[in-house]
Amino acid sequence: MALRGPLSRLLRSTLSSCQQNRSHSVAILGAPFSKGQKRRGVEHGPKAIRDAGLVERLSNLDYPVHDFGDLTFKHLEKDEHFMHVPFPRTVGRANKLLSGAVSGAVGAGHTCIMLGGDHSLAIGSVEGHAQQCPDLCLIWVDAHADINTPLTSPSGNLHGQSVAFLLKDLQNKMPEVPGFSWMKPFLSARDLVYIGLRDVDPGEHIILKTLGIQYFSMRDIDRMGIQRVMEVTLDHLLARKQRPIHLSFDIDAFDPSLAPATGTPVNGGLTYREGIYVTEEIHNTGLLSVMDVVEVNPTLGATPEAVEATTSLAVDVIASALGQTREGAHVAFPKIPESKEDTELRM
Amino acid sequence: MALRGPLSRLLRSTLSSCQQNRSHSVAILGAPFSKGQKRRGVEHGPKAIRDAGLVERLSNLDYPVHDFGDLTFKHLEKDEHFMHVPFPRTVGRANKLLSGAVSGAVGAGHTCIMLGGDHSLAIGSVEGHAQQCPDLCLIWVDAHADINTPLTSPSGNLHGQSVAFLLKDLQNKMPEVPGFSWMKPFLSARDLVYIGLRDVDPGEHIILKTLGIQYFSMRDIDRMGIQRVMEVTLDHLLARKQRPIHLSFDIDAFDPSLAPATGTPVNGGLTYREGIYVTEEIHNTGLLSVMDVVEVNPTLGATPEAVEATTSLAVDVIASALGQTREGAHVAFPKIPESKEDTELRM
Amino acid sequence: MALRGPLSRLLRSTLSSCQQNRSHSVAILGAPFSKGQKRRGVEHGPKAIRDAGLVERLSNLDYPVHDFGDLTFKHLEKDEHFMHVPFPRTVGRANKLLSGAVSGAVGAGHTCIMLGGDHSLAIGSVEGHAQQCPDLCLIWVDAHADINTPLTSPSGNLHGQSVAFLLKDLQNKMPEVPGFSWMKPFLSARDLVYIGLRDVDPGEHIILKTLGIQYFSMRDIDRMGIQRVMEVTLDHLLARKQRPIHLSFDIDAFDPSLAPATGTPVNGGLTYREGIYVTEEIHNTGLLSVMDVVEVNPTLGATPEAVEATTSLAVDVIASALGQTREGAHVAFPKIPESKEDTELRM
Repeated sequence: MALRGPLSRLLRSTLSSCQQNRSHSVAILGAPFSKGQKRRGVEHGPKAIRDAGLVERLSNLDYPVHDFGDLTFKHLEKDEHFMHVPFPRTVGRANKLLSGAVSGAVGAGHTCIMLGGDHSLAIGSVEGHAQQCPDLCLIWVDAHADINTPLTSPSGNLHGQSVAFLLKDLQNKMPEVPGFSWMKPFLSARDLVYIGLRDVDPGEHIILKTLGIQYFSMRDIDRMGIQRVMEVTLDHLLARKQRPIHLSFDIDAFDPSLAPATGTPVNGGLTYREGIYVTEEIHNTGLLSVMDVVEVNPTLGATPEAVEATTSLAVDVIASALGQTREGAHVAFPKIPESKEDTELRM
Repeated sequence: MALRGPLSRLLRSTLSSCQQNRSHSVAILGAPFSKGQKRRGVEHGPKAIRDAGLVERLSNLDYPVHDFGDLTFKHLEKDEHFMHVPFPRTVGRANKLLSGAVSGAVGAGHTCIMLGGDHSLAIGSVEGHAQQCPDLCLIWVDAHADINTPLTSPSGNLHGQSVAFLLKDLQNKMPEVPGFSWMKPFLSARDLVYIGLRDVDPGEHIILKTLGIQYFSMRDIDRMGIQRVMEVTLDHLLARKQRPIHLSFDIDAFDPSLAPATGTPVNGGLTYREGIYVTEEIHNTGLLSVMDVVEVNPTLGATPEAVEATTSLAVDVIASALGQTREGAHVAFPKIPESKEDTELRM
Repeated sequence: MALRGPLSRLLRSTLSSCQQNRSHSVAILGAPFSKGQKRRGVEHGPKAIRDAGLVERLSNLDYPVHDFGDLTFKHLEKDEHFMHVPFPRTVGRANKLLSGAVSGAVGAGHTCIMLGGDHSLAIGSVEGHAQQCPDLCLIWVDAHADINTPLTSPSGNLHGQSVAFLLKDLQNKMPEVPGFSWMKPFLSARDLVYIGLRDVDPGEHIILKTLGIQYFSMRDIDRMGIQRVMEVTLDHLLARKQRPIHLSFDIDAFDPSLAPATGTPVNGGLTYREGIYVTEEIHNTGLLSVMDVVEVNPTLGATPEAVEATTSLAVDVIASALGQTREGAHVAFPKIPESKEDTELRM
């Protein structure tokens, strides 16, 4: 298997400095954290995804893979609710730690794969990425928009509010949540595209509409087809200039029949092939810089097979985002071998 | 969640009188009846769909929901076969009763949801609807065409002949079936569209072709995509004039992997997303007047999960037909809240 | 059910002689053979497909079906590896036998259905077909390209090398494999189209690209849709002239959720409807001459239901390739019956 889209890689010479020192290596960062929501188990996501063979699968690709292991998060004893939001300081502190780690990995030239944990971790992951690459754009693949503010959130859970912390456009609608004084919102609403939405709260809907955010709900995918959705997505984000992509992939974007081991499944999700198509297209830009894979919760599958299906799907989308192709690639062979010598040359 | 398609509702001022007195309330009518076919259990459909949370789900929508409970049907002791057709008088009488109830509900201004029971009930449901709205059009979502006459039906079962009773164009091909003297065929073949066909009997095929009925088999959906199928369907029925829609939805239109608890499953059916897309599009016309949901048979699932999947799917298509959206809606919020006061205003 | 595409059948008068003596009968040939790969059980494929009701299903179609039973294959005691290729002489000899049988069936005017067995059998099946119809074209529906040479094959298994034995274009890249001296490659790379690829070895990829073979990976199907894929496929093969089609259908082309009982399943395969669409389109050309259905391994299903799903799927694609339609057909009725006499006429 091999990298695709050499043309787009040529284009990198016009990129921001954060991309120019890229060494084409991959960093894996585990973030075993679950306090952005109330169900236990999602902190076991990094181990479950690794156990499904992640590093081995990536070794088939062209570049070195460095697994930096798991971050260690602290649960703060004193952490009262803010409004109805639980664990604000614990979530804020975890994201500050993660932000530093992601910034470090990107700064060292790696493409960074962040294994969650719950989706509140995207706050730190995108923030750390933006420290190195302030002009990044964000593709959020998810059944949910995760764009509630504490004032609109029905549940209070921070994993449903991550995007609200990132957006400059929401700055004057956000109360000051304890634990987050270390960061400021930095992303423009026009630098974000959603794919896969099908369970959007009323407060989220008014935000999406008021800010004019580009999103593709499952209905849009039904109408347009995934090929056209990706075409419009990449055009929306990259037409003016090539720039680093942050892909934040919630496993619940997939249909629950494919990814049952997750906390908030919603019927009518992406097919396997649609999910892979999304990551293939993002890889083909040559611009993927950080990818989050979150909300794999191995304690929630009804059977061991259900858990295995979910974790192995996580491995598949990561491999696809990093260049594994469905139609193969022939790095190993410069030409069709005609003799045993040709073959041995390759071994 | 909210009503969509306000534009199309404006158009109602040009509608027939049956639509003008619409109060935007929903009536639920249970029809626990199974004599249109030979398998027991489909009479438990209304209870099973209610137990899956129908009324609660509809309470999220904008308008009042009235559950009128179940009709009571009598099994006639003396009811010999007509040709090889079983229970003709029992089926005829049940449909006469249902016709009156549907006519009453529509006349009172409700959008009516009829929960079957088997698909022979569509005879009474559409007939009662037509008493109030003689210019209605009919969308029949089903794996089967249900358009056999007693002369073509391989099984004799009346749930496979419902449409033949409705069509003026078949009047001189239909024998006089005992139990149906109370009604006359009233529908034109051009006012009917099928979606989802994949098991069509030879006699049905000659009828479809001879009458030039517009239908979309699963092969057509594969060729055209569901977006285009709905576009052509609504254009075919509504281009000349806006008029009330009767949606007769057989749960076996869905793939058996999604709706296993039904009497005559056929492989290769609608996906979840296609079924929801069909009902979304019909809702968006603002013209849905009566909807049948039939052939949910809770005694036929192999496991409790199989039954639950089927009944919950029935709830999903009803909610979608009545305005639940996948991309959300923001009725609750007139603007993005900026303070606790804004939020409390909404509660 | 009925034959479709009468127009295309008219075109047969311009066909090669191999098509002109066609009697519109079907020959079924069982090939219980498994030495093209290392897993036991695929030799029970023919029995399992027959037990799933193949002959009964085909009896609904218009033409006579002759089941010629199973061929008897010998496992040679002395059959050392050639390079790392196991059982070369056993596979060669089995294919020679099969070639004669297929040639005989086609020569006698039958449309021939070959039930495998593993996909190495396509060597003999296509070769025998080509003896009668040298201008045939080949549609290979499979997750894999099966186009390794012994010099590129990672496993050595011959079921992954079948196409390499057929192609003239690879003649000077193929070593002389013992057991295959009875045949010469005869097919041009431009007379072959792949559908469904998603697991292609590096050596296969360089061959596909070097020879410019037309293929549609699952990614291509995601991009183009199955309707367009079939349009391009048939145009590529038939635009210059109408000629016999050899359809080599590996059941692993389907998604493993549909066809679990097979030796090398790969996620992200054809849906049921896509597979049926492929065979419908091929039937509609009126040019199907031989069809292989291979790699059904009834010992590999996790449950009896998994095996049954796989074998019944095999029956469905065969019936569809031979003319069963999803929208029905009305051979039995010349017109809508108006009286019991009309109906009895038909019985």
